[in-house]
Amino acid sequence: MSDRPRYDLAALRTRLDGIRLEDNPALVRQKSRDFYWYSPILKRQLDAVAADLVAYPASQDDVVRVLEACAELAIPVTPRGAGTGNYGQAMPLAGGVVLDLSGMDRVLDIAPGRVVAQAGALLADIDAATRATGQELRLSPSTYRTASIGGFIAGGSGGVGSIMWGGLRDLGNILGLTVVTMERQPRVLRLTGEEVGKVAHAYGTNGIITEVTMPLAPAYGWLEAIIGFDDFGRACSYANALGEQDALAKKLVSVVAAPVPQLYFLRHRPFLPDGKHVVLAMVDVLAADAFAAFTTRHGGEFLFRSDLVPAERRAGLPPIYELAWNHTTLRALRVDPAITYLQTLYPFPHQLDLVARLHARLGAEVPAHLEFVRFDGKVTCFGLPLVQFTTEERLEEIIAIHEEMGAVVFNPHRYTLEEGGMKQTDAVQLAFKREADPAGLLNPGKMIGWENPDFDLASGRLYLFQGLA
Amino acid sequence: MSDRPRYDLAALRTRLDGIRLEDNPALVRQKSRDFYWYSPILKRQLDAVAADLVAYPASQDDVVRVLEACAELAIPVTPRGAGTGNYGQAMPLAGGVVLDLSGMDRVLDIAPGRVVAQAGALLADIDAATRATGQELRLSPSTYRTASIGGFIAGGSGGVGSIMWGGLRDLGNILGLTVVTMERQPRVLRLTGEEVGKVAHAYGTNGIITEVTMPLAPAYGWLEAIIGFDDFGRACSYANALGEQDALAKKLVSVVAAPVPQLYFLRHRPFLPDGKHVVLAMVDVLAADAFAAFTTRHGGEFLFRSDLVPAERRAGLPPIYELAWNHTTLRALRVDPAITYLQTLYPFPHQLDLVARLHARLGAEVPAHLEFVRFDGKVTCFGLPLVQFTTEERLEEIIAIHEEMGAVVFNPHRYTLEEGGMKQTDAVQLAFKREADPAGLLNPGKMIGWENPDFDLASGRLYLFQGLA
Repeated sequence: MSDRPRYDLAALRTRLDGIRLEDNPALVRQKSRDFYWYSPILKRQLDAVAADLVAYPASQDDVVRVLEACAELAIPVTPRGAGTGNYGQAMPLAGGVVLDLSGMDRVLDIAPGRVVAQAGALLADIDAATRATGQELRLSPSTYRTASIGGFIAGGSGGVGSIMWGGLRDLGNILGLTVVTMERQPRVLRLTGEEVGKVAHAYGTNGIITEVTMPLAPAYGWLEAIIGFDDFGRACSYANALGEQDALAKKLVSVVAAPVPQLYFLRHRPFLPDGKHVVLAMVDVLAADAFAAFTTRHGGEFLFRSDLVPAERRAGLPPIYELAWNHTTLRALRVDPAITYLQTLYPFPHQLDLVARLHARLGAEVPAHLEFVRFDGKVTCFGLPLVQFTTEERLEEIIAIHEEMGAVVFNPHRYTLEEGGMKQTDAVQLAFKREADPAGLLNPGKMIGWENPDFDLASGRLYLFQGLA
Repeated sequence: MSDRPRYDLAALRTRLDGIRLEDNPALVRQKSRDFYWYSPILKRQLDAVAADLVAYPASQDDVVRVLEACAELAIPVTPRGAGTGNYGQAMPLAGGVVLDLSGMDRVLDIAPGRVVAQAGALLADIDAATRATGQELRLSPSTYRTASIGGFIAGGSGGVGSIMWGGLRDLGNILGLTVVTMERQPRVLRLTGEEVGKVAHAYGTNGIITEVTMPLAPAYGWLEAIIGFDDFGRACSYANALGEQDALAKKLVSVVAAPVPQLYFLRHRPFLPDGKHVVLAMVDVLAADAFAAFTTRHGGEFLFRSDLVPAERRAGLPPIYELAWNHTTLRALRVDPAITYLQTLYPFPHQLDLVARLHARLGAEVPAHLEFVRFDGKVTCFGLPLVQFTTEERLEEIIAIHEEMGAVVFNPHRYTLEEGGMKQTDAVQLAFKREADPAGLLNPGKMIGWENPDFDLASGRLYLFQGLA
C-alpha cells in the first residue's frame, strides 16, 4: 500500500476539534478489522489494511462535521459499527478515517410495533429496552450480543428471525433510516419505503446511517430445542416442515450434519450422541405442546429442550442461536483453524433435493449446515457449510461445483458488494452513490460498479481494488 | 319430523332446576337456526328444524348438569355459540336441547402471547380485553363482531388473519381446550397439543367446549386498503405477491372480481370505479410506506386507504373485513336474494392458473372472490365465489366443474362434517366420539362416520340424516 495518497491529517484534526480521535497505531489497526479472517483468502488480502485515524462521533452533528471535513480534504471515510462483519466490509482499504459509530448507541423511542435507535446501538441493548414492552427486534445475526443495528443493516442480510420475517431486503423489515451524505455540505436524509434500499446492505459506500426505525415483533419466551435424527435427509425434511408450520411462532430452524455438532458444540456435547444430525430450533414456549406434537408426528427425538432441562444443567450453555448462522463457523474455527465456510442458497422448491445431492457429493469435505428462512414467501434454506480448507484453488472448485449443481453462492471470500452478493451492481445504490458521495470517498474499493464500471463480473476474474495492489 | 322420539322434558326440567331454560316456540326456533339460509339447499332441508328447549348454562358446572341429565334421559344436545355458522352446524336435527353457551362469556386470563376465555365469549369482546396489552386474536371470521370463540373453534376453519397464521387446524393456533363429555358421569377434559384436534371443527358432536386458550398476536394498527386493477389476472398476482411479502404484517388479502364490489359494497361504492377488480387488504400501518412501495412496484392503484381518507368520509363505512370472507356473500345476498356461493381451495403452486381458467369458463355465472392464506407454509387462495343460483342441479354441475378442473370444494350446501369438508370421516374425532358421547346424543346427524359408517362418501350420493326424513 505504498501508493496510498498522503492525507492532510493535521488539517483534519484542526477541523475536528472536540471530537474524539484515535491515532495509536495498535488501536487504529484493531478498529480497522472485522471477522474477515473467517476467510483464508480475505485474511491474505486484507491483513495489512489499516486506517490513519479513528473518529468517534458522539452525535449526528459530529458525523456531519467529520464528513464535511473529509469531503473538503479528500480523505476517505469507512464507517464501522461493532466490527462483527465477515467480509472486510468495515475495513478501510484506502486508509483515511474509520468512523466508529459505537458511541451513538442510544435507544431514542419505543412504541407498539417499532423502535427508533441510533446506528451504533447494540441489538441486545435495543432488545433490553424494548422487552419491557413485550417486544423485540424481528431479525438479528448470531452476533446479537455484540453487533450494532447500523452495522447489521449496512452489512447483514438476515439471520435469527428470518424463518418468520424473511430478510432485511424485504420491504417492511427496515421502516426508516436517517443518512448523512458525503458532500462539501453534507445533507441529512430520511429514507423510508423503497428508498431504504439505497443504503441498506451497501457497506456504507454511499451514506452514513445515523438513525434507524425498525419494526418490532412480540418477545415470546423462546423454547430452545435440539432435535436429533439418524438420517440427514430426515433432519432436513423435518426442518423444512417445521419452517412451514404457519401457526408456530419461531425464530430459528437450523440443520447441522454430524459430526459437526459433536466436534464443535463443546458445551452442548453432553446432549449430542455420536452420529446424530441435529436440528436447532427456537419456538414460542406457549406452543410447546403443539411443537412436541409436530415433532412426534415427524419422528423427531428431543435431545435438548430448554424448558425441560434443569437450570443447573443449562448453566454455562450459550444461547442456542450462538450455535447457528455464522456462529457454527466460529465454533468450528475455534477447534480447527483450518476450517472455513461458504454461503449458499438452495432455491425453492427443490431445496431438499439439492441439499441431498450436494451432501452426497461433498459431505465429508463440506459438512452441511442449513438455515431455514422465509424467502419470497416460501420456506427454503440458506447453507453455511463448513469447508475443510486445503488450497484457494480447491475452494474455488468447491464453489464452482455448488453453482453448477444449482446452488446460489454468496461468496464470503470477497470484500466487494458485487462478488459477495448477486454478481451484479445494484443500480439504485450506484445512482445514490453518485448523488451522495460524488468524490467516491466513502468506504473505497467495495463497490466495483463505482470503482471500475468496465469490470466484467461474469468473467470469473477476481476484482482487486487498486489501493490494495 | 313426525318420527322424532318424544323426550321426557318434564323430567329434564326437574333435573335442571336453577338453570335458565326457554321453551317459547318462537324463541326456541330462533335459537335453533344459524346462517344456513346462505344455501338454498340447506334452506329447503333445514327450515323446519327446531329444538324442544334451549338451556342457558351460566358455568361449566351447569354444562355438566345439563349433559348428565340429558345423558340419563337420552335427550340430544346441540351446542350453540352465537349462531353465526353457515352450514346448519348448530341446528338440532333431532330436536332435544340447544345448549346456548352465550352466557359463558368471560375472559378469564390474559398473558403475553395467550388468552383464556369461556367458550361463549365473543371474539370482539376478547380483543377489547386483550388490546389493552397490545394484543389480539390471531384469527377470526368476518363475523368477528358477533361470533363466539367456542363456535369459531367448533365450526370454523380460519379467516381474517389466515394470511399470516394459517388456519385453526394448524398446530399452535389453538393452545388448549376444556371439554365436557356426554356421559352419565360427564368428565371435564383438558386437551392440548395433538389432542386439540379431537374436538376442533367437530361441530360439538363429541364434547362441549367450555373454555379455550388461544394464542395472541400483536394488535397492529391495521391500515385498510382497496387496490384497483383493470385486469383480473393482475389483481390476483398482486394479491398473491402481497401474501408472500414476509416482512409486511397483514391480516387480510382478498380479491373480488368486478362487478361484485360495485354491485354489493354499497357503502364503499364512492371508492369503486366501474370495471375495477379490487384487492382488499389490511396491513400494519407502521409499514404504510413499504406497502405503498410494494403496490407501486406492482402497478396497483389505491382506491381507498384508511390512513389517507378523511375521517368524515370514513364515517359509516363498515370495517373492511366485513366486505371479505363470508361477508362478501352476505352483502350480495342482501342486494340479490338469488345469490349463493361456493367454498373452494386452489392448491399451491398452480392457484393463479386455476383461478384464471375457472374465471374464464364460469366468471359471469360464478364471479370470483378469493381469500389468500398461508396453507402448509405456502401462500395460496381459497375461493368463496358467488353463484347466480338457478337450480340445485346446476349448482351441483358447477361444483363438479370446479372439482374436474382441480379445485378442492368444501361444499357449503351440506350440513355434515364429511360432505362439507374433506369427504372423509376424521378417524380421531370419530374415536373420540365413541369415548365421549357413547350414546350418540351430541349434535346428531352431523358426523356420517358415526350415524352411518357404511355410507359411501365417494358415491356422490347426498347423505340425509334420518331424523330429517
